[in-house]
Amino acid sequence: MKKFMNAVDRILAESLDGFAAAHGDIVALHRNPVFLTRAKSPVKGKTALISGGGSGHEPLHAGFIGRGMLDGVCPGQVFTAPTPDQMAAAAKAVDGGAGVLFIVKNYSGDVMNFEMGAEIAGVDNASLVINDDVAVENSTYTTGRRGVAGTVIVERIVGAAAEDGADLAACKALGERVNAATRSMGVALTSCTVPAAGKPTFELSDHEMEMGVGIHGEPGRRRVALGTADEIAATMLQAIADDLAAKPGQPHLLMVNGFGGTPLMELYLMYDSARRWCAGRNLAIARSLVGNYTTSLEMAGCSITLSRLDDPLIGLWDRPIHTAALRWGC
Amino acid sequence: MKKFMNAVDRILAESLDGFAAAHGDIVALHRNPVFLTRAKSPVKGKTALISGGGSGHEPLHAGFIGRGMLDGVCPGQVFTAPTPDQMAAAAKAVDGGAGVLFIVKNYSGDVMNFEMGAEIAGVDNASLVINDDVAVENSTYTTGRRGVAGTVIVERIVGAAAEDGADLAACKALGERVNAATRSMGVALTSCTVPAAGKPTFELSDHEMEMGVGIHGEPGRRRVALGTADEIAATMLQAIADDLAAKPGQPHLLMVNGFGGTPLMELYLMYDSARRWCAGRNLAIARSLVGNYTTSLEMAGCSITLSRLDDPLIGLWDRPIHTAALRWGC
Repeated sequence: MKKFMNAVDRILAESLDGFAAAHGDIVALHRNPVFLTRAKSPVKGKTALISGGGSGHEPLHAGFIGRGMLDGVCPGQVFTAPTPDQMAAAAKAVDGGAGVLFIVKNYSGDVMNFEMGAEIAGVDNASLVINDDVAVENSTYTTGRRGVAGTVIVERIVGAAAEDGADLAACKALGERVNAATRSMGVALTSCTVPAAGKPTFELSDHEMEMGVGIHGEPGRRRVALGTADEIAATMLQAIADDLAAKPGQPHLLMVNGFGGTPLMELYLMYDSARRWCAGRNLAIARSLVGNYTTSLEMAGCSITLSRLDDPLIGLWDRPIHTAALRWGC
Repeated sequence: MKKFMNAVDRILAESLDGFAAAHGDIVALHRNPVFLTRAKSPVKGKTALISGGGSGHEPLHAGFIGRGMLDGVCPGQVFTAPTPDQMAAAAKAVDGGAGVLFIVKNYSGDVMNFEMGAEIAGVDNASLVINDDVAVENSTYTTGRRGVAGTVIVERIVGAAAEDGADLAACKALGERVNAATRSMGVALTSCTVPAAGKPTFELSDHEMEMGVGIHGEPGRRRVALGTADEIAATMLQAIADDLAAKPGQPHLLMVNGFGGTPLMELYLMYDSARRWCAGRNLAIARSLVGNYTTSLEMAGCSITLSRLDDPLIGLWDRPIHTAALRWGC
């Protein structure tokens, strides 16, 4: 296992220390239990948004704390759900009097722990579960579909609305609407290596890829021969567009998300394949996002996400945002 | 070779097409010869900045086109210098009447071709050569030191000054000053694979790393046993700080740059090691940058850069910037 680290059991703590030090103008790190908030928190009167989940998906979620997106984040150990006491402490810290929305990716451990955290938080709260991955229905760690890179789009759009004054119920309803309009699928060219395991999660030959892979390296739809970028994009987008019932002329956000080990040059090439596929079906691309946003440690691979964004949603996407990983307009 | 691609000879063109399509609000792609400019170009009366070099280092350089940084970029094939006709065409396109500064990383092919490009450009111009890598003196592709991730810092600070109205001579002098105050060193945990070669550039065992590696996978100082993050940071920072004659109390920018295959979680952990090393020597960290900014395809590894930024330079670093890869303040 070749990783930059000092000791397996200090990876998360040291990485969070580095993140908080590098972005002290945006975030604050809290310990015992571990959670992160905005540097200036709580924001009085604003609906607060908390997300979290296992680590190893950086910049998800801590990279999305800041104006126009999240208020707090609860990071678990690598690929391990955070604990209820983290959520409860984070909720108390970020509540500005307007309640807290928990944004949870659909994995059994996360859903269960966020439910328990919500019960003991002692502040007004609601929960929103993200399940954008069309690859499989029930899976290794889920009942129902997995939550993957589409989470970034939901967190950003609901974050913009919360910044603009939307109340807790409105934020939850908006998040459900964006989640329902968002579909993703991923593909892996290599495995990742969980530090505590010390060896690759799965093995792929030099001529294979895992189509529909999950963001923890869990199995997808099928193991297939390595295809061209155009073939890979077509397979993923056909599944996504069919499931979304995407129609010509509707505006979409097209996201190509790297899993951590794929260079930007290849991600932009995949974006080119994806946009040409969309153009061939008259699916309008109103906004784009290309980069490493929901990763799986050092896995080589990517996911494609389509999100149907009509006018009010595009306006929210464009609102000012200032986080470690996404910034514009401020 | 496992890469997202359709054909080896179309990788660069398709990646650039994707990049230009994803960022059409910021950049414009020109063909025959290939170069990129700002979407709105030239900027009348502003000193124009052009950079470029071999591809495979994304987001360097095209990701740095935009307000507060570059006006144009000439991308070569992977790890191959661009040609003089690209520089000449780019210079003509971006010149707003105040001349063009070519910012060139110190590799023999780049330096030679930029010199020829400058001669045939037909516009007032000057050149600035970046050589921040302390690892080796003469090397595989250079006479003198290599230009690596410190290039980002030079391009950004000179870009801010140019936006504020600095003339060609002032931009060149400022760039020389920042380059002289900037030092970098890199380490590789794995090789990269140049698409046209189809196999890794070099081989490392599971217990080795290449200390002082170049951004094309060229040899560094020595091949050594894999160390801890703290040991790696100490080796690199000792070489950097000695060469820079860094003194306690002086303000520095600390950059931890990923080479493309290293996840953000590890980069922030390396940043934590680096900042603790600096704190132990009372080297002040005034600004930080952590992420994949000067990559080597999918190489796992990173570089550390220290740049001594006194007050006017920090002010320029903080000025509004709007590029695909760096954004703040606008």
